[in-house]
Amino acid sequence: MTVEGIPKYKEIAAKKIAERNAKFVKEWLIPAEKLPQLQDVSNWIPKSGYLSEEELKITESDASEIVKNVKSKEWSALQVTKAFCHRASIAHQLVNCLSEVFFEEAFKQAEDLDKYQEETGKVKGPFHGLPISLKDNLNIKGQATSIGMVEFAFNPEQMEEDSVIVKLFRDMGAVFYAKTNVPVAMMMPETTNHIFGNTSNPLNRNLSAGGSSGGEAALLALKGSPIGVGSDIGGSIRIPASFQNIYAIRPTFGRFPTYGSRSGLPGLESVNSVNGPLSSDLEAIELYCKSVIDQEPWNHDPKVVEIPWRKVELPSKLNVAVLTDDGWVRPTPPIRRGMSIVIDALKKDGHDIIEWNPAEHFRLSQIISSFFVSDGGIHIKEVTKATGETFFPYMQNYGTTPEMGVAQLWKLQAERTSLIKKFLDRWNATAEKTGNGKPIDAIIMPATPFPGNPNGKFHDYVGYTSPFNLVDYSVGIFPVTRADKDLDPKDEKRESFYSKTDENIWKDYDPVESHGGAVALQLVGRRHQEEKVIEMLKVVRDLL
Amino acid sequence: MTVEGIPKYKEIAAKKIAERNAKFVKEWLIPAEKLPQLQDVSNWIPKSGYLSEEELKITESDASEIVKNVKSKEWSALQVTKAFCHRASIAHQLVNCLSEVFFEEAFKQAEDLDKYQEETGKVKGPFHGLPISLKDNLNIKGQATSIGMVEFAFNPEQMEEDSVIVKLFRDMGAVFYAKTNVPVAMMMPETTNHIFGNTSNPLNRNLSAGGSSGGEAALLALKGSPIGVGSDIGGSIRIPASFQNIYAIRPTFGRFPTYGSRSGLPGLESVNSVNGPLSSDLEAIELYCKSVIDQEPWNHDPKVVEIPWRKVELPSKLNVAVLTDDGWVRPTPPIRRGMSIVIDALKKDGHDIIEWNPAEHFRLSQIISSFFVSDGGIHIKEVTKATGETFFPYMQNYGTTPEMGVAQLWKLQAERTSLIKKFLDRWNATAEKTGNGKPIDAIIMPATPFPGNPNGKFHDYVGYTSPFNLVDYSVGIFPVTRADKDLDPKDEKRESFYSKTDENIWKDYDPVESHGGAVALQLVGRRHQEEKVIEMLKVVRDLL
Repeated sequence: MTVEGIPKYKEIAAKKIAERNAKFVKEWLIPAEKLPQLQDVSNWIPKSGYLSEEELKITESDASEIVKNVKSKEWSALQVTKAFCHRASIAHQLVNCLSEVFFEEAFKQAEDLDKYQEETGKVKGPFHGLPISLKDNLNIKGQATSIGMVEFAFNPEQMEEDSVIVKLFRDMGAVFYAKTNVPVAMMMPETTNHIFGNTSNPLNRNLSAGGSSGGEAALLALKGSPIGVGSDIGGSIRIPASFQNIYAIRPTFGRFPTYGSRSGLPGLESVNSVNGPLSSDLEAIELYCKSVIDQEPWNHDPKVVEIPWRKVELPSKLNVAVLTDDGWVRPTPPIRRGMSIVIDALKKDGHDIIEWNPAEHFRLSQIISSFFVSDGGIHIKEVTKATGETFFPYMQNYGTTPEMGVAQLWKLQAERTSLIKKFLDRWNATAEKTGNGKPIDAIIMPATPFPGNPNGKFHDYVGYTSPFNLVDYSVGIFPVTRADKDLDPKDEKRESFYSKTDENIWKDYDPVESHGGAVALQLVGRRHQEEKVIEMLKVVRDLL
Repeated sequence: MTVEGIPKYKEIAAKKIAERNAKFVKEWLIPAEKLPQLQDVSNWIPKSGYLSEEELKITESDASEIVKNVKSKEWSALQVTKAFCHRASIAHQLVNCLSEVFFEEAFKQAEDLDKYQEETGKVKGPFHGLPISLKDNLNIKGQATSIGMVEFAFNPEQMEEDSVIVKLFRDMGAVFYAKTNVPVAMMMPETTNHIFGNTSNPLNRNLSAGGSSGGEAALLALKGSPIGVGSDIGGSIRIPASFQNIYAIRPTFGRFPTYGSRSGLPGLESVNSVNGPLSSDLEAIELYCKSVIDQEPWNHDPKVVEIPWRKVELPSKLNVAVLTDDGWVRPTPPIRRGMSIVIDALKKDGHDIIEWNPAEHFRLSQIISSFFVSDGGIHIKEVTKATGETFFPYMQNYGTTPEMGVAQLWKLQAERTSLIKKFLDRWNATAEKTGNGKPIDAIIMPATPFPGNPNGKFHDYVGYTSPFNLVDYSVGIFPVTRADKDLDPKDEKRESFYSKTDENIWKDYDPVESHGGAVALQLVGRRHQEEKVIEMLKVVRDLL
């Protein structure tokens, strides 16, 4: 405690917020009384009149259009950057999605790019002049990386080096202007922390943005960024992407560089965090993946695997396994309806649909949870203790789980390896069930049981996403529809529930409260098959 | 203790040995008095008169010749198998290199292959009729896997499933006839254990075969096998390959399947064991790598990476960094002479030679040693305790090191990751030192400080090999020459030594005792660049 009874962590957080807030462009800030009271703000910005016609045109453009227009000098990099900064500023006022703000630096960076183009007649790279938003854990030279922990708000105040992927984007000509909000240590499925507070969902502000890439997904849904980078260790790209109805890829570890970003659990390798792109535009996702891999990131990150970006030819008809209910938590009606929409569309188009048996999923989701706290929360306790910040309910187990010994860790790791082999064998064995004797190309299934959850009511069940962090498959998220109070009435109470979590999620679902929430699903491909996943996402998108 | 005062483990070991010995073909066993008393038995077999002319011709042939001749029906698979079984039997009598022996099963397998070819007119795969020897840790359906631990001699007596790589070889038509000796748990650099005893070095039986793939390398050096599979977690392929003057590849983890073999430290993932080929024929190594990867092992092992076997074009002149002395243990004179031979040959051929700075090596070798015992030896203690087998001197730390907590493991893993990034950056930075502005293609350096060590005197210094397990680079071993008592006199005593180990290794080196020992070196390429490493090995071989 400091003088006057204000806890130290609150004092530091207040200072950080004040400094961050001073970095917004004052003329762009909308007076509180002019801000909407709507739940659904997803279409408010274009209609609000706060953006100029030109700003609107730029920010409604796809990434490829933007780089094309900067290259042709239709737009300057500065013009584009200002437009996105302005829109991001409004987005932040609507859903509280930004952590770090550095518009001034972005303007300078854009001016330098314009000058470079003026002087050389060339663009710096495939992202020349494209603003890109970054999840808070990515280090940018000169900015802080707090990952939602008060101790890191000013420690260091300025990072000395870019994360490898940030450096690659810098070399490709991208412009950095903001980092996006995350939960404490990025280890909660909702985006809230003691510095920047909670990020809410633009589709329905009663709902959470999800986590941990929640600030990123919310900003992207409001088109305050054409493309952004998230990270995923148990669902942290997929949950918020699905809650915001945007596209995203959780790649296999080793496909994209991860070195040099701040981890909530540094040194954890039993499961590896990965980063990947999120965007409302699927082609932007493809541009991102191809461009990053064309930079040969294996020469910059010691854990990246030398697999070039490959051209994929899909079979004319896909073999798809579907999983609507994992037997541990039954998805709420909007998600089940979303699954039906996709299954019907695929069947109608002649694709071969079989059922997926989630035999290993639940145990994998238990094991991954054990990995997260295998250090007994020692790191997180140390960092929080430094400022006295308190634990959110989702984080309690980091305070209470005893540290594991390495012998026990080895047992769990061996068990995981045996489970992921079984998973692979079962994937191959689907060849016996499909019509053409080939195994499935993908699994399509929910990413969460609900279309966004009321803030604070995620119930921490990540069993629809976390098994894929352990099998380490490449997974895409795609939007399907939105929850509808009339189409998605509450289920009758079942005679028995799979689990307490299942019952609580049933209980919490309120069709009115969830109205307008996102219904997005996962498409799971094999390891290192990001190219194929993107092609399959295109097929599904074109059908819907 | 059992009755009569014989420790349980000795009783079990004796039973195992008796059963194993009964599996040799009696007519092939050479009476003790007819066995040579030579130190160097590397050329004894061809001259001994125990092999028929045909058996000699077959066993002196390269792998590609063998599969060609079986395919053309010049030789039957059975004929080939019998020839190698016979030669392996003699090899074993010379250096004690085999653990499991199953010639009868091999004859049956070969007959089935011949029958298959007769009936279908086709061969089963690219290894049809090729005998392949396997390090003991690889599981073969129906055989035991003792990995040098008495408890596993009969537990289980018969494995129920092939390791993934064994299954791939079976599908390719390879014939299994023997497994080869390893040290206890494969965690010593010399091949000895309480079941099968010590494997000695055919080039000079005063010297150790090295470990842990020592039985394999000794058998291959005596051409009791055309190609074999070893495994490497700190040097276990490279040390014995270098001691026996044969070729070998330690691949990057994820290039070849490792699933389903018995580990001495199951569940350890801070550093991953890999397996790879050893052979006296470099083209056999290439055939192995290409054939395995053409089977798409990523569809069978959940940790294999989807990288096809690629055609590599080397630059006409290579950039090579050399490291003759790592500053912790000075290599003995034969090894330094070997380095000179190679450096001179490369320079003469116009390749660009710079020095390699081993800045991260020593700390990496410390960290890997900590990883090995991070479970406090709990697993090894449990397994040895089951039969009461005693610890060899090299294994003492598995009995004495306390178990590490996961928090400490995370710290070490994070430090390792930061070191391997530095290593990569320094590799890239060599571009500033080479003549053509490109980074080095390879590092050439010793694999051990000596040309084989006297049995029991390895001093456990694996600092020339183990750093590459952590950076996880692809490494080849190639033979250069042999130690010569006249060319390699002992160094004068230096005023100061780098370390106690350095001094001991200087002290132990005796030119007469080491005479004829192997001088083989390492060629280190980047991650997942096994193709390029093989091409570079060809360049070096052709120069020598």
